[in-house]
This record gives sequence, structure tokens and C-alpha cells, in this order.
Amino acid sequence: MTAARIRLGMVGGGQGAFIGEVHRIAARLDNHYELVAGALSSDASRAAASAEELGIAVNRSYANYAEMAKKEAAKKDGIEVVSIVTPNHLHFPIAKAFLEAGIHVICDKPLTSSIEDAEALVSLVEESQLLFAVTYNYSGYPMVRQAREMIKNGDLGAIRIVQLEYAQDWLATNIEAGGQKQAAWRVDPNQAGSGGSIGDIGTHAYHLAEFVTGLEAKSILADLDSFGEGRSLDDNAHILLHYSNGAKGMLWASQIASGKENGLRVRIFGEKGSLEWAQENPNYLHYSPLGAAAQILSRGGAAAGDGANALTRIPAGHPEGYLEGFANLYKEIAAEIIARRRNETITSTSLIPSVHDGLRGMRFVDKAVSSNRAGSVWQSLD
Amino acid sequence: MTAARIRLGMVGGGQGAFIGEVHRIAARLDNHYELVAGALSSDASRAAASAEELGIAVNRSYANYAEMAKKEAAKKDGIEVVSIVTPNHLHFPIAKAFLEAGIHVICDKPLTSSIEDAEALVSLVEESQLLFAVTYNYSGYPMVRQAREMIKNGDLGAIRIVQLEYAQDWLATNIEAGGQKQAAWRVDPNQAGSGGSIGDIGTHAYHLAEFVTGLEAKSILADLDSFGEGRSLDDNAHILLHYSNGAKGMLWASQIASGKENGLRVRIFGEKGSLEWAQENPNYLHYSPLGAAAQILSRGGAAAGDGANALTRIPAGHPEGYLEGFANLYKEIAAEIIARRRNETITSTSLIPSVHDGLRGMRFVDKAVSSNRAGSVWQSLD
Amino acid sequence: MTAARIRLGMVGGGQGAFIGEVHRIAARLDNHYELVAGALSSDASRAAASAEELGIAVNRSYANYAEMAKKEAAKKDGIEVVSIVTPNHLHFPIAKAFLEAGIHVICDKPLTSSIEDAEALVSLVEESQLLFAVTYNYSGYPMVRQAREMIKNGDLGAIRIVQLEYAQDWLATNIEAGGQKQAAWRVDPNQAGSGGSIGDIGTHAYHLAEFVTGLEAKSILADLDSFGEGRSLDDNAHILLHYSNGAKGMLWASQIASGKENGLRVRIFGEKGSLEWAQENPNYLHYSPLGAAAQILSRGGAAAGDGANALTRIPAGHPEGYLEGFANLYKEIAAEIIARRRNETITSTSLIPSVHDGLRGMRFVDKAVSSNRAGSVWQSLD
Amino acid sequence: MTAARIRLGMVGGGQGAFIGEVHRIAARLDNHYELVAGALSSDASRAAASAEELGIAVNRSYANYAEMAKKEAAKKDGIEVVSIVTPNHLHFPIAKAFLEAGIHVICDKPLTSSIEDAEALVSLVEESQLLFAVTYNYSGYPMVRQAREMIKNGDLGAIRIVQLEYAQDWLATNIEAGGQKQAAWRVDPNQAGSGGSIGDIGTHAYHLAEFVTGLEAKSILADLDSFGEGRSLDDNAHILLHYSNGAKGMLWASQIASGKENGLRVRIFGEKGSLEWAQENPNYLHYSPLGAAAQILSRGGAAAGDGANALTRIPAGHPEGYLEGFANLYKEIAAEIIARRRNETITSTSLIPSVHDGLRGMRFVDKAVSSNRAGSVWQSLD
Repeated sequence: MTAARIRLGMVGGGQGAFIGEVHRIAARLDNHYELVAGALSSDASRAAASAEELGIAVNRSYANYAEMAKKEAAKKDGIEVVSIVTPNHLHFPIAKAFLEAGIHVICDKPLTSSIEDAEALVSLVEESQLLFAVTYNYSGYPMVRQAREMIKNGDLGAIRIVQLEYAQDWLATNIEAGGQKQAAWRVDPNQAGSGGSIGDIGTHAYHLAEFVTGLEAKSILADLDSFGEGRSLDDNAHILLHYSNGAKGMLWASQIASGKENGLRVRIFGEKGSLEWAQENPNYLHYSPLGAAAQILSRGGAAAGDGANALTRIPAGHPEGYLEGFANLYKEIAAEIIARRRNETITSTSLIPSVHDGLRGMRFVDKAVSSNRAGSVWQSLD
Repeated sequence: MTAARIRLGMVGGGQGAFIGEVHRIAARLDNHYELVAGALSSDASRAAASAEELGIAVNRSYANYAEMAKKEAAKKDGIEVVSIVTPNHLHFPIAKAFLEAGIHVICDKPLTSSIEDAEALVSLVEESQLLFAVTYNYSGYPMVRQAREMIKNGDLGAIRIVQLEYAQDWLATNIEAGGQKQAAWRVDPNQAGSGGSIGDIGTHAYHLAEFVTGLEAKSILADLDSFGEGRSLDDNAHILLHYSNGAKGMLWASQIASGKENGLRVRIFGEKGSLEWAQENPNYLHYSPLGAAAQILSRGGAAAGDGANALTRIPAGHPEGYLEGFANLYKEIAAEIIARRRNETITSTSLIPSVHDGLRGMRFVDKAVSSNRAGSVWQSLD
Repeated sequence: MTAARIRLGMVGGGQGAFIGEVHRIAARLDNHYELVAGALSSDASRAAASAEELGIAVNRSYANYAEMAKKEAAKKDGIEVVSIVTPNHLHFPIAKAFLEAGIHVICDKPLTSSIEDAEALVSLVEESQLLFAVTYNYSGYPMVRQAREMIKNGDLGAIRIVQLEYAQDWLATNIEAGGQKQAAWRVDPNQAGSGGSIGDIGTHAYHLAEFVTGLEAKSILADLDSFGEGRSLDDNAHILLHYSNGAKGMLWASQIASGKENGLRVRIFGEKGSLEWAQENPNYLHYSPLGAAAQILSRGGAAAGDGANALTRIPAGHPEGYLEGFANLYKEIAAEIIARRRNETITSTSLIPSVHDGLRGMRFVDKAVSSNRAGSVWQSLD
Repeated sequence: MTAARIRLGMVGGGQGAFIGEVHRIAARLDNHYELVAGALSSDASRAAASAEELGIAVNRSYANYAEMAKKEAAKKDGIEVVSIVTPNHLHFPIAKAFLEAGIHVICDKPLTSSIEDAEALVSLVEESQLLFAVTYNYSGYPMVRQAREMIKNGDLGAIRIVQLEYAQDWLATNIEAGGQKQAAWRVDPNQAGSGGSIGDIGTHAYHLAEFVTGLEAKSILADLDSFGEGRSLDDNAHILLHYSNGAKGMLWASQIASGKENGLRVRIFGEKGSLEWAQENPNYLHYSPLGAAAQILSRGGAAAGDGANALTRIPAGHPEGYLEGFANLYKEIAAEIIARRRNETITSTSLIPSVHDGLRGMRFVDKAVSSNRAGSVWQSLD
């Protein structure tokens, strides 16, 4: 890509944050962006220190997002896109400010902290005609693309069963009581919204299944728990799903599953075969055609198709990981922004998770909560 | 064991059957039994041919189980125990006949084809004071015993999550239409009872969880499907469970999961750690203590405890498999029978799956079916 | 098989031994043999106690093998075949006695404790025209047969590279000093012969490679070590091999490889693909065709061929292990003996490891030792 | 790091090259460098196009390395360090030019194409007192650092056995005949030097073992092959090693191992335990303490130590891969350069592979070739 690098801003992600640095590495990896502005922290001194460390000019390090949106929009060489990497409840007002300023948005998941905000955001995006991407980053892994392509090609036949899980153990003990910052906001309904593990990681698994299969979930039944003392939000979720074509699903999301690190795993079973992909060893896709030997397809390997290969940087056997998968979304977003510079769009074929995907994730959270409250009854997702 | 070998009879298991030969190998492996009588098939010529092949004397190859129970009971050197390896609906009348004849019973699972038969059988066994074992054979694997021992020792702390699955694909297509005998009776409610996959394999996973954790399931919610054309019984089951101590469970049983062979897997998560065991590579138990490196314990290895070692024949790294696990139940049953010969019993410490375990399995099937019929509502298992 | 069971005797294998019980289980598993005579221990009381435990009649429990050979040969219903499960240096005189008595022989490996004995034994067997089987038991695993069949079918093209290893750790410390009986004779040149790990386990790997590829090793270069204090025999061996067709091999045998249990692994690379099989998870064969996705073939699975299926008792996903693999040799030996009863032989297609294979193993040991003594120089194996 | 970014130049790595882009991503990932100058190709138009694509100013895109070294040295804000990513035979003259210009050097491996060049380069570096790093990139993986730390801490006791392999299959067929550029120079002695697979990948494994164990190899014995038609350099190498402390090693390097992608694996066995690390799933280190359960340590996990954690960006279970491991070297090099800016050095504790490590790699190649020529005889590496 010989086009000039895209001018990127960031809200959130100051020193001590986690996901902000992930977004920055993702933006940096393929050299399509330069980070030129930020409102990196609500704490002014931390914001300034963070900006300096990142080489952001002093006059483009803002005290708050509203000022940033306004001033950047007014600059001739203002940012073209902003990454929002704050706790959930701030996604909506920040996104609104930048959309209204005519600036594209990359937003972390879940989309918002309430279904109402999510619906309002969909309208704002549609009116704006701006690019709005939600970083359901696991969809950027090459072998996830491979799975999607194979299912689309009919390699599995009609899908029957979807088995999803995302299990972690970092909230197995009450680390929020000790002031762990990442934990503190995630267990607080005011910042996280109505979903705990279902919002933080369940939405990833839920999106991934729809992304890979091309199916939509139609109804949901949930059994949620808060094992951690004093928690009001779920830290473990057992969920059943019905998909549009009659396929049945199970989804387990847990942040108290002792011994699990980031155990995101997707298994799809169709009439003619099945696929299994696990995030912790993401360069391989297990394919079991019915009535034949099981296969292991590798990223970069002989059996990988166009979708996977388009997002592959280095040869098979040299593993790419989480950061590269995240960077793949930034790469596709860059291509879209550059096309729009030229008054082109490539949205017709885009696989970039959209605000609509974000809204679907919020409905998943909302309906899981209401199903659980009603004693695990089926809820429509339409 | 220098005691004389135990005189064993068998009902069912003639030529062309599967599980009968498994029981015979299990009985043979450690040299504790000799098979001396049988009613191996309802087809007289097949029964005779099967008996001859197995070295059973002509006059102890019977045309039917009723005659066999009567005549063997009358012999001075009649059988001490009978193995019942027929389709489910015959378990009850056959078990009844032998119990009434004063003969110990080893019965394949599920216990019966109806909850009423199961309850009646419990009464019969209790009155008889005879040994009645149900071959939930997976409980005989050494590393399953290891898991049980570790949980009992408190290595996991309080159990929070139980993840169960048993997935196969041999019914992914309608092989019963082509006359496959094993399939034909399993999809027929008259022979199998009200459960399809839940009875045939779901009960195994359900039992294993209770066996390993020492917990009892209290309530159940099920979403059952029949993907195979023309099937009335479930061939896929998505089930939620609540355990006595507040632990939550998921259970997936499927016989249409393309690419799965005998994917029985049990994962138990407690406050302090987790365990994972998979039947397809059964010599290893994965143990993940919270906040420390994951461990792989091997059968026969340095970290294996007494329970596992008591059932281990050969050194670590020389795998034992399904037949050895099955034989472990026969070994423990033999010890019990020999103790009873001496008017001793060892039941107080016995881990042999009992008629009560069998009844629990039948309730699991019964309540899963009623939950599903009512639209996936919680049902009490008490 | 409806033929009468084969009358089996055993020399060695009394209480406290390991491999004797393995042979007995192997003989028992498929019901083709009955153990009717034995000289189970050189210690008379242990011999008697062992015999009683095994149900061998008092008058067929012998004080020594010479008496046993003579008396059994004289009986009308004397044993048809004897299993020799003693330390290596006794294999030759015992085998000689039984061959001269006209009795078939099943002999543990390595064949003898010296190359001279091995050559003499080959002559004796050839003169006798009796069946002589060496229990290179790993060749009995179904997926080893699958590998052999695929290579014979040309699935790998011309073989280029052979990577062999058999690593254990049970001699990592000097357990022989503490009187561990299994260790004591294996580190004693008078009982074990000139090879330590190369004889005890290296020969297995060496045989397996020839069995699977159909190639013969032509020359050998060895670097042997004795890490255990006070040991004169090797406990670690690094070996290079040249095969008849120009293929090159590496073989690592170790009994001091901390953390390894029975790490026997064979990897074969040809022009068109490769195969990998590991004994510790033996139901799977990894096949990597060049330029296509890797495959995992399972025992009993859709892609298994005739050779594997002939030795498969239970469905895919229900693991068979070491004892079943061992039993497969006993099964093939039984078929051969029963054919000979009828004056037929099936040797033309036999895969039973023969005295010639045993001799090749002894040459491997002998030449490895001489190569090492000369400072790791190439030695011809012809 | 708030210091100004390091000014980086590059020689080689123009469009169509592989390793140049890897170096650039590695430099970019943590934001410590900016690429400001280059002589990216010997083809002038390709050099210019490559520079433009990378945002290098026209006047700092040079036609050749000599001009670049001279002009950059003369600039006040000239490059501080150059990355050399050309075929092997050019490493020496280019490194010489930049060292003589007073510019630090990052050089791809193997160090040079001849042992004489390597020795001359050592002298040049020593005289210059400049930083000279060789990108033995696998030493940058966090779990390789973990292995090193554990061995240094004595967790394995005295090292006894070193098992090394690096197997690929990309040269299994003669792709050089079809003009594959990466292959063409690697099989050409004029460009690659005297080593084929041993130089290209064997040196990696060789270095890694020394890096991890802290031992030095003392002698070597090699059996080299050229399976590919018309090749004069080795494409498969079977090598034995003796280490300084008496440990014994095997090393297998192959570029014709059908089905292997980048199968670099290191296994180290000591008196008290063993470690295994495989590059294709690099976030895990397998640790088997003698007489206890095996352990799996994960990058970022509870059992990871300081060395690994210093190079870890994201939490356990979110895999980092090849590019991150490569970037870790660039990160450590950056720290060193920034320290030198302040007239500090941190070399006393540096783990950055040095010119001496590069020379050791060249000796490994040189002696492997001479051992093989002499019929696989031991050669001293001193």
C-alpha cells in the first residue's frame, strides 16, 4: 500500500491500560497508520505522560474526547479515524462525538453498556455513512477466515451443531477487591453494563459463530452465575442457542474456570463434516470430513485458501498470534479508509465487524440476562 | 487371587453383537472368571454356534434366559454371576429372573428401558441382597479414579463448574435404514426406551461426573433433537445441570457429531484448580492448579495415587485402554464375589456402579425427555 | 476360531516378574490359548506358588526348563508352544531345549545375549522347521500395520529419512544399587549381553523401522554412553543408520531421559509424504502428504486399511493399548499354529517377527558396540 | 522508553524478499525504530519502488551499500544502526562497510559464507567496539528464555542429553529449478557458502542449544545428504555432538522432510528433569521433573519467570508468535543502543546473539562439512 499512512487518534489506553496498547501494535504492525492524537486518560497527567511516550505532539494530546473530536475535525490534517478503548459505558458518548465530527470509528467490544445506546449508535452510524468497526478481533485470525470459507463452500453441508466456549480464570478469586483495575470496571454494572463474562468474552464467541457459519442465532436460554463473592454480574454463563436454520448451539463463557487462560474454542458440526478452532493455538484448523481421515490445516500451508492467505504474513510453521490477528482487522479497515479517500467503498465484500454485529452482541447480552432472570426460559433474539 | 475362578454366564452377546465380546474380554483379562453357560441369542442356531465358539458345553447353552436361570440355579456348580448384554428393554426381565434364582448380576447400561422397571429393579436387588453391578465402564479407567481421589482430597476446592460431553458420529447418517443392527435397536423406542443418545451415551457422562465429583445432580434442563430423518428418539442433546452444592453443569451428548469417534470428555473446575480427562487418550489426567503450572499426570506415573495404581497393570507410557478399563470393573466385581463366598462383603468401600446409580441414570433420561417436551424447563431429579 | 485352544507353556515369569504377565494376558485376551505348564522360576517355591496362582496343575509345574521340555514332549497332550520370558542370556539354552523337543517357541527380545548364540539359534530353527516368534511386540499395533501398508502402497514414495527414538527414564538414577530386580539384570553384561539400552529398547525401534519401511539397514555408527554411575553397559545411545535404498536414519535410545516414560516414536519421510507414530498414543497415525493438509488416521476409523482392521477389536475412539498390541502377535501366532495342526502353513504372508529378525537385532547391538569402541566409525550390518 | 526512536537503515529486503519484511515488522512492533534509509535492492528501480512503499525519502534510498554507509555516516542525523538482510555471501562486505563507518550492525544469520570472513568480522567488531547483533531470532522467544533461566537455576541438574531438530519440507522438490528466488540462492554455494540446510536452519538449532544450556559444543560428527537432484549443498543433515560437560547431542536439520513446516524443537535432559520447546507452538514449555508429574508452563502464566516476562506483551492464552519473538531481539538491541547513546553499556548482561555466536555457527557449518567429507569422523569445534 503506497498511500500515505492513515492519521489515527485514540481515546483511552493510557499507561496501565491493556487493550489500548494492543490496538496501537495492531495499527503499527503493517505500517498503515500513524498515531497523531489522543485523549489517552481522564487523568490529565497520565494522559500527557502517555502521549509523550507515544510520540504524540503536546498540542494533540487532549484532556477529553469532546475537545479532541472538535479540534481534530477542524484541522486540515486532523485524524481520519479514532480508536475507542475505554470501559464499555463510555463507548457510546465517545463514538457519538466522533461520528458527529465526521470521523471514522474503531470501537472495542461490547458495543455499548446498554441495548438502548447500541440501537441509538446504529442510527448514528447509518446517518453518518462513516466507517464504524467493532473489534471482534478473533474474526481476524487467518484460520477463522479459512473456516468461514469452507463452510460457505459447503464443505460441512448443512450445519447442525455449534459448540462454543470462552473460558478464563483471571476472576477465579476476587481480585477486584485488591484494586486490580482491569477487573474493577468489568464487575461494575455502571461501567460494564448488564453483562459480566457474557459481555466481556461471551460476545466474542457468539460473534465468531455467526461470522464463521453465516447463520444468525434466533433464540437463547441462559443460566448465569456469580461465583465471585459480592459480584452482581455473571462470571460464568451456560447458554443454549437456536440458529436460523435449525442448528442448535451451546455456549460456555467463564472467567472463573480455574486453569483456563484464554480458552476460546469454536466447533461446528455439519452433515458432512466438522471444524474445530482454538484460539490458544490459532494457526491450525481441525477438519473432520465424515467418513474420512481427520485433517489439520495450517495457516500458510498447502490447504489454506484465499481468505486465510490474504491475512498471512509469514510462512507456515512460523506462528502468527493474537496481535497479528488483531492487526488484520486494522489492515482491512485501512484498506476501506483508503478506498473511501478515493470515494470508493469496498463494503460490499467487507468482513469487518460492523455496528450491526455490535448490536447483535448487545442483544445477546440483554436476552441472556432476561432469560436467566426468568429462570432460564427461551428468549427471541429478533 | 488364588481363589477358584468365578463361574460366569451370559445372556445376549451372540455372534454379530458388539458389547458381549467386550464383557467377555473384560472377564478373561485378569483370569478371574470362566464363562460356562449362556443364552447368547434368541435365535437358537446362532446361540448354539456362539456357545460352541466360546467353548461353552452344549448342555449349558440355553434357548432362553428363563430356562438358564432355573437350571443354573439348580446345579451345584451353576453360575455365580450372569452378565446381561441385550438391548435395554430386556435388562429388567432377565435381571429379575436371575436375581430370583439367587444369582449375582452384571448388567449393561442404561439400567432398563423405563423408569418404572428401574424402580422395580432397585426393590428386587435390595430384597435379594445379591450383588448387582451396572457397567458404567468409564469409571473403571485408572485416571478417572485418580480424578475422584484428587477431588475427594480437596485438590480442587469446592466444585463450581462441570463440563461434560460425549460425542460420536456413527448415526450422522441414517444407517438404521440400511439395517445396521446396532443402530436399529438404539433408535427404536420399544427396545431402547425413551432416550436415544441420552440413554446410550449421555448416561455415561452423567454418571462419570457424579462418580468423579461425589456430587449429585439436583435439576436438569434439556434441549433434544433428532437430526436423523425419521428418528423419534434424540440423537443430539444439549443439557444444563444444577448440582447439590451449587455447582453448574453442561452436558452435550451427540451421535451425529461428524468427525467424533468416542469423544467422552469430563472437565471439572473448582475454586482451587481443575481437572480434564478425555476417554480417547485415557492414560493422562490434566490438572491445572490455580496460579501454578498445568500438570499432566500419567497412569502408572510418579504422581498417580492409590486408586489409580490399584487398577494399573503395566508401566507408565505403555497405554492401557478401553478393554482394560472395562476389565477393572470385572476385577472389582470378582473381588466382591469372592469376599461373599467367604461371607464377607466389601461393599462399604465399593466403587462398583450399583443399581442405585443405574436408577439415577434412568431418572436423568426420564427428566431430560420431560424437560424437552415442556420446552426446556428445569426438572427436579430428586 | 472354533479350533481347540492351544496348549501353552511358559519359562520364566514367576511372581515379581513383569513381562511374563504381559505374555499371559496377551495369550488370554482372545481366548486362543490355555496355559497348562510352566517352569516359572528358578526358585522352586516361587515356581510352585506362581503355578498355583495361575491354575497350572502341580505335576506340570517344573523345577527347570530342561525337565519341562522333555516331559511335555513326551505327553500326548503336552504343550504345543512355549513362551520364554527370562533374562536374555537364558533365551538360547531354553529355546534350544524346546526346539529339540519339537515344540514351537515364542521368545522375548532381544533374541539372545550374544551374536554367536543368535546365529546358532537361526540354524536350530531352520533345521527344526518349527515356528519361532520373537516378540517385537510393537509391530502388533494396528496403526503400525497401517503405516507398513501405506508405505508398501507407495503413499510416501521413495523413503529418504528415518527418525527413531525410544526414550525412558527409569534408569535415570542407579536403582539397580537398591536391588530393583528388573534393573539389576539389565545392567549386568552377564545376563543382558553386550547391549544395555540398545538391546533392551533400541532393538525395538530398529526392528520397527525395518518392519514399517520394508528397508534393511546396511551400516551403523554409534555413540554410546553410560551415565549411570558404575554402569558398564550403555544407558544412552546416539546412532546413525544407512538403509539399503540410500535412506538415512537416526536412532536415539535412552533409559536415562528424565521425564520420558515409554517414548517410542517412529517417523518416516519419503519423497511424497511422511508418517509419524508414537507408542504412547498408539491409536493414531499422523500422515502428512507433501503439498496437502496433514491427516490423522485412527484405528478403527474410516481411513484404516485391511492390515490395521484385521487387528482391531473395538470401534474407533475406544482406545486399544499395549496389551492388545501384544495380543495381536499371539493371535497371529495362534493362527499359524492352528494352520500347522492341519499341515498348512501361512508363513508366506506372515508378519510375525522371526528368528531372522531376532538375529538382525543382535547384529544391530553387536555392531553398535563395535562402532562405539572404535570411536564412532561406520560398521557394515551385512 | 521515552527516548527518541532509533534511526534504522536496511540493506537488502526489497520487494519480493522475505526476511527483510520480518526485520521491519520486528523493528516497528514496539515503536523503538524508524526506518529512514536503505539500499533495498541491487536492482535500482526495485530499490526505489521499495523505498517509496516504505516511506523512505528519495535521497536516502541508495543504489548500493557502500554509498549508503558513507553518506549516512556523514549526516548529522544519519542512521544509528543498519540491518543486513541479504544472501549470506554479502553479509561480510556490507557489515565491514558499516562498521568502518561507525554504524551499529544487525546481521541475519549465518554470519558469513566462509569461516575466514567470519573470523575477520570478529576482529572488525572487536576493534570497532560497535554493537553487532546476529539475528538468531529463536532465542527471543519468551519460553526459550524461560528454559534458559530454569537450566541456569539448576532445575534440571547436570545436563546429559541434547536433542535438536529443525525440519522443513520446502526443498522436498527441486523448486530452485523453477526459479524460486529464496531457494535459488540457498542451494548455490557461491551465495550460501559451504552449508545448505546446516547453515540455513541447522545453525539456529545449534545456537539455541548453547543459548539455553549455557554449554559449548566441543566436537561434531556429521552425515550430510543432498536428496534434491543436482544439489551440491546438503539438504538433510544428521549430526552428533559432544558438549563441554560430557553431555551428548543429536541434531537433525532437513529441508526435505515432507510434511514439516518449521519444525524446530529443542529437548534438554538433565539428571533431575527435562525441558521441551517447539517453535510451532512456542507459548508453552514442557517441563518434566524426574519423579513428579509433567508440567506445561505458559508464556505469561503463573510459573513464568523474569526472563520470559520481560519479553511478554500480552496475557497468557493470547499467543505471541514468530514476529514477536523476532521483535524481542530488536527490543533488546534498542535498549543497548539507547544505553550507548548515554555512554552506558548493558552488555554485561546482554543475551543478544553476538558476532562470537555468529562465528560459532560458522564453525559448526565448517566442521560439519569436513566431518562428512572424511566419512563422518569426529571434528573438534575449538
